[in-house]
Amino acid sequence: MLLGLGVVGGGVARALTEKAARCAQRAGVPLVLRRVLVRDLERPRLLTLPEGLLTDDAEEALATDCDIVVEVLGGEHPATEYIERSLAKGHRVVSANKEVMAKHGARLLSLASERGGEIFYEASVGGGIPIISPLKRDLSANEIGSLRAIINGTTNYILTVMSGGVDFASALRDAQQLGYAEPKPANDIDGHDAAYKLAILASLAFHTKLHPDDVYREGITRLTPRDFRYAAELGYAIKLLAIARRDGNAIEARVNPALVPQGELLAKVDGVLNAVQVEGDLAGRVLFQGAGAGALPTTSAILADVLDAAGSIAQGGRPSPWRYTSDIPVKPMSELVSRYYIRVEVADRPGVLAGIGKAFGDNGVSIASVIQKETDEKAQTAEIVIMTHAAREAAVQTSIQQVESLDVVRQVGNFLRVED
Amino acid sequence: MLLGLGVVGGGVARALTEKAARCAQRAGVPLVLRRVLVRDLERPRLLTLPEGLLTDDAEEALATDCDIVVEVLGGEHPATEYIERSLAKGHRVVSANKEVMAKHGARLLSLASERGGEIFYEASVGGGIPIISPLKRDLSANEIGSLRAIINGTTNYILTVMSGGVDFASALRDAQQLGYAEPKPANDIDGHDAAYKLAILASLAFHTKLHPDDVYREGITRLTPRDFRYAAELGYAIKLLAIARRDGNAIEARVNPALVPQGELLAKVDGVLNAVQVEGDLAGRVLFQGAGAGALPTTSAILADVLDAAGSIAQGGRPSPWRYTSDIPVKPMSELVSRYYIRVEVADRPGVLAGIGKAFGDNGVSIASVIQKETDEKAQTAEIVIMTHAAREAAVQTSIQQVESLDVVRQVGNFLRVED
Repeated sequence: MLLGLGVVGGGVARALTEKAARCAQRAGVPLVLRRVLVRDLERPRLLTLPEGLLTDDAEEALATDCDIVVEVLGGEHPATEYIERSLAKGHRVVSANKEVMAKHGARLLSLASERGGEIFYEASVGGGIPIISPLKRDLSANEIGSLRAIINGTTNYILTVMSGGVDFASALRDAQQLGYAEPKPANDIDGHDAAYKLAILASLAFHTKLHPDDVYREGITRLTPRDFRYAAELGYAIKLLAIARRDGNAIEARVNPALVPQGELLAKVDGVLNAVQVEGDLAGRVLFQGAGAGALPTTSAILADVLDAAGSIAQGGRPSPWRYTSDIPVKPMSELVSRYYIRVEVADRPGVLAGIGKAFGDNGVSIASVIQKETDEKAQTAEIVIMTHAAREAAVQTSIQQVESLDVVRQVGNFLRVED
Repeated sequence: MLLGLGVVGGGVARALTEKAARCAQRAGVPLVLRRVLVRDLERPRLLTLPEGLLTDDAEEALATDCDIVVEVLGGEHPATEYIERSLAKGHRVVSANKEVMAKHGARLLSLASERGGEIFYEASVGGGIPIISPLKRDLSANEIGSLRAIINGTTNYILTVMSGGVDFASALRDAQQLGYAEPKPANDIDGHDAAYKLAILASLAFHTKLHPDDVYREGITRLTPRDFRYAAELGYAIKLLAIARRDGNAIEARVNPALVPQGELLAKVDGVLNAVQVEGDLAGRVLFQGAGAGALPTTSAILADVLDAAGSIAQGGRPSPWRYTSDIPVKPMSELVSRYYIRVEVADRPGVLAGIGKAFGDNGVSIASVIQKETDEKAQTAEIVIMTHAAREAAVQTSIQQVESLDVVRQVGNFLRVED
């Protein structure tokens, strides 16, 4: 049964119809679409489905006798409730819903285990890139040390355009015109979408319940073309990274723009592509890369789950319960240790560096390099770019406040974490 | 039960011991090592296993009452026979053996299906990179169009070194000193290893039986630092690619050094890393990258299979049979259509290009660019590099023979296919 027939739902319905023979072969049983819940029965559709399959009555749809429920409604409500009701009946549920899985995943997984059902959500992160299943299965013997990912295609497209010298507003407009960014782009550019996906991945990787509210989040709106130019000169690309890292008895979880060394594969993932790099104690660094969104890639992931669910029904086994075995605290952002890139606009006169150097030094932040960049002789201002050695976030933040209060400093233009 | 306790077998035994709690949690049942077959009981070992676990008697080992047999002996014999006997008893078998799976995989998969067992072989290709399971599960709804892979770390390391201007012999010596290449390196540098792995991947991707003997194979010994320099000037890296491509009712299957555009991620996979790029009709291009060899990454893949096998036993389902649904013919190499890079050493006198141009033109091969490179004035020789438009392999080979017979041509230094 299919809940939703939008862009993704239409892709799933079409593929189930057009690839019926292939699907039956792979699953070992034929797959029959029993019911499709839509918002508006009258809306014209490109896809012709058998008479009577569509309904706009959620109660009728949820009462359908079926084995597998595919949820592609998107949004938190009513998707969460529909999934819950289906799992309560012991159904296998396939969902592409990152918001629901990020916020309610732990509860839904427990419910599935209790009732003998199962919830599959490969499509909730990374579109057509296999990542949920590799974390659950292929890397299951590993202690995961870290996850670093580019999991929002919209922002990666904007950053790729900006790296060519375009400002944020223009790059955003470009992305909107191409349909890569929404008219209201906050969900992407402020990092919410990436935080949902990181919460899902980190929960799996570390077998813990990480809520998206616990993910530190910075968007990409403060970046300027100058940051990209300076970063490139220093040997770095700028990417919006979603990072989760095991650190003793805590996990670090954050979404922020970061400087990535140009030689790393993550630095070379451009445009709307997504990539996830997982580091395990046995496997080492493994990278998964591909199309992170779009109707077809998402359909690929949903159908993989559907075929898996159907296959397991055909083979007669019980669904494998998924257990969150730990509840690991999230490390406060102030305790993060990182290297930092700091761009400061200053008055172009002697003694400037001494003052700035003192502010960092007083807080125990060691400076690796200082480069004086553009000078505006008329305005008597200059710009300097500071790279620190590894330092604590709290100390760096205090230093920046002190730098900003200096007479000779116009403003701290930007600061970015370095992800070596 | 573990067959073999070499570098990989030792890694598996150690991980099963040290990660016993984790493994039990993941699989839902404890995993107990029942018996380990070794060649020499007296050999000193770093790992201490419980008394009486080791045996050098294969019959005794194979008679062990167990659920899962892990084969890490390597080589075709006696591994094939041991796997067969285990499958015949309905066991789940986990194997890291690319040679066995490439040559006998279809038969072993059938045998497993018949007897209610299953054979897992994630570790046979790409070390710790999940690729078998993604092809079987995550991309199962896709029609796969092509597979392009760097699946031999030894040759990728040698090519990476050569791209810095080092000749083949020195780069090979370097690889041997680091333990990346064997004292007898033919299996790697002539492409046999890559052909085995390609046969395994292509058989899965296209649901067919591709024998490694049907994979066209060229090694890397003909490459010179000049080829790398010219390729770089033209915007390409040189990689030993394993390529399988669906072309109507046939598949193209080959291992050869190829020019890869520098902008592609495959061109940026350096050193001993492996990468596999799969193109599906739904998912688009998906890339998997990581450590392709080594005891720990291989152990990661083997344990994933072991945990999967144990989990499915715990859940009580029947193993899922794998079906090769088609028997697709392999396209003869002469029918390949590709662009070509051809390096020709010629006498430095007028009329040379005319003669060469005529040879290609007569065979219907269209030339995209000709660049005259190094000239040795003393020897009155020059080198020219030709890039063709897409052309048939047969026509290009005939052209090359005709070019070689020209008076003004010293020799055709090299020719390489271009993989755009």
